[in-house]
Amino acid sequence: MSEEKNNFQETALNQSPFMRACRREPVPYTPIWLMRQAGRYMPEYREVRARTGFLEMCKTPELATEVTVTAAERLGVDAAIIFADILLILEPMGIDLEFAKGEGPVIHNPVRVAQDVTRLREVEDIQSLDYVFEAIRQTRRALKPDLPLIGFSGAPFTLASYMIEGGGSKNYIHTKRLMYGDSGAWHAMMSLISRALIKYLNAQIAAGAQAVQLFDSWVGCLSPDDYREYVLPHTREVIAAVTQGTPVLHFGTGTAALLELMREAGGDVIGIDWRVDLADAWQRLGDVAVMGNFDPVQLFTNPDFIRAQAKKILDRANNRNGHIFNLGHGILPETPVDNVLALIDLVHELSQR
Amino acid sequence: MSEEKNNFQETALNQSPFMRACRREPVPYTPIWLMRQAGRYMPEYREVRARTGFLEMCKTPELATEVTVTAAERLGVDAAIIFADILLILEPMGIDLEFAKGEGPVIHNPVRVAQDVTRLREVEDIQSLDYVFEAIRQTRRALKPDLPLIGFSGAPFTLASYMIEGGGSKNYIHTKRLMYGDSGAWHAMMSLISRALIKYLNAQIAAGAQAVQLFDSWVGCLSPDDYREYVLPHTREVIAAVTQGTPVLHFGTGTAALLELMREAGGDVIGIDWRVDLADAWQRLGDVAVMGNFDPVQLFTNPDFIRAQAKKILDRANNRNGHIFNLGHGILPETPVDNVLALIDLVHELSQR
Repeated sequence: MSEEKNNFQETALNQSPFMRACRREPVPYTPIWLMRQAGRYMPEYREVRARTGFLEMCKTPELATEVTVTAAERLGVDAAIIFADILLILEPMGIDLEFAKGEGPVIHNPVRVAQDVTRLREVEDIQSLDYVFEAIRQTRRALKPDLPLIGFSGAPFTLASYMIEGGGSKNYIHTKRLMYGDSGAWHAMMSLISRALIKYLNAQIAAGAQAVQLFDSWVGCLSPDDYREYVLPHTREVIAAVTQGTPVLHFGTGTAALLELMREAGGDVIGIDWRVDLADAWQRLGDVAVMGNFDPVQLFTNPDFIRAQAKKILDRANNRNGHIFNLGHGILPETPVDNVLALIDLVHELSQR
Repeated sequence: MSEEKNNFQETALNQSPFMRACRREPVPYTPIWLMRQAGRYMPEYREVRARTGFLEMCKTPELATEVTVTAAERLGVDAAIIFADILLILEPMGIDLEFAKGEGPVIHNPVRVAQDVTRLREVEDIQSLDYVFEAIRQTRRALKPDLPLIGFSGAPFTLASYMIEGGGSKNYIHTKRLMYGDSGAWHAMMSLISRALIKYLNAQIAAGAQAVQLFDSWVGCLSPDDYREYVLPHTREVIAAVTQGTPVLHFGTGTAALLELMREAGGDVIGIDWRVDLADAWQRLGDVAVMGNFDPVQLFTNPDFIRAQAKKILDRANNRNGHIFNLGHGILPETPVDNVLALIDLVHELSQR
């Protein structure tokens, strides 16, 4: 690309509604994208997925590009998010990652005691994840020049809890046992993860991502005290080290009592789930952009119901600068595509300034 | 029992630290009991359970009495809670309840659509649950005369969600589909449950329970708006109809954004989990007693750690009248008994006025 063309694209991207909202600048309408927008609910995705394992898809830049771009174009959202998994950074740390059919991630060598922590590998060379960066490069070339692309990873706590539990968890017993029982090993592990994340997110930005999101999906199992002591310093370290000028989206679920602390940890945009009132949450958060709040299960209803719910959220945001529409968690696999399309159109229509 | 003896016992019960705390009167020390205090973590319980199915235990007053009394005496807690299950009220409504080994409750004929709701039975005669009342009568006779006994049930939302999902759930898709999709059927179902609950709780009180608890264990999956519209009127109806003078304990988890609404629904004591700071929560709740807040996973640590955590909670309660110490959810099956005993002793020791 010529330098002139390059500058032109940079301006177009920077002035897109999504990027403007991340910086809390006025927008012509409320930008929307949806977590897991390239996912099993979408026939185009299922078709690719039918031929390929989940991890293989992540590791094949052409396929990751295809599903990322297809979803963004089909939906007409205001940002694309690279097709990848929040756990990919665990592999170069020495974790055996598998995605069992219909079961989500399984880790065969979980970290349980302090000694397991010492066996984790420092991620010296982030290039083992070049498949992610290559997917970002290819996707950036394939996307419309003014459509921002989001890179992402799991946040330190959510990564640590997967590593320790070996998969999903109900009560996080193993995680908390290590955290409470050996805080030295815990902090060493969180630091190691954080150092890897800084490299990983910045390499995604260097490859062409306009923003990066940290998914702290399971942090809602913690008390405010535990978040402050065991999580906040690490998440803050990661966010502070992200390349200047690139917005960071900081997302969690079940965080109704953690919002001020998440804000303290950092991020230009705080992602909230549906369990809080958006107006209350934003008041508590203060001068930061806000994303989320639509219950993904409400996409199982019908366009009239969806319109009423979307309107309620937009009313509460009240055209305040820095609102990005999104779900409170990822799109669920059985979600009707037509309802997803309806939500996106409705948000654009109802939020015209 | 002679009338004199009876009056003597009533006074002793009414003046117990637990009952005084429910009424927010001064207490000599902070009363403590633990949700699921008669449970799998305890060898005495496992021994009875090894010979008998879970539901059979609930339905055999002698066994329910044995595990209730044994747990209360072994632990030295300030209240006993009758051994039963939050779902027992579903059976007379026409629901087939089974407790599959290690899987929790399974309902083979879940309610999914409006027509299923019309097939639910109105609970005309609560005496089909006489095994619960008989267990309460026997337990009341077997317990120390000044030790209060708590009756309980699931709250309307948690019962409805079990009936609809057919068991535990991650996303409550079926529940919310019915709730959003057919609010008439939803409210009819919640009303039917509420009418049954009023009879059930009052019959437990008539049989000898000094207080009753509503477990709204899964209500934290809802937004404040949804709680207000779909849950609050029903829970309020139940609580308002509980026999005057009997304290109602109103408990939920994941309720950080629902506390004011739960308060509005009613209850003399509001149960909170560990995801909120107790001082913040109590300030928001206002003039009501408060119970809970200790993370059950912290019982996997050691007495020193447990002491520090218990002290933190007691410091935040700051000797305010109306504090009942408890966990934020039930004791987990693998919890070391010695740590449970340590917590109870520590709370008594640290909270001496």
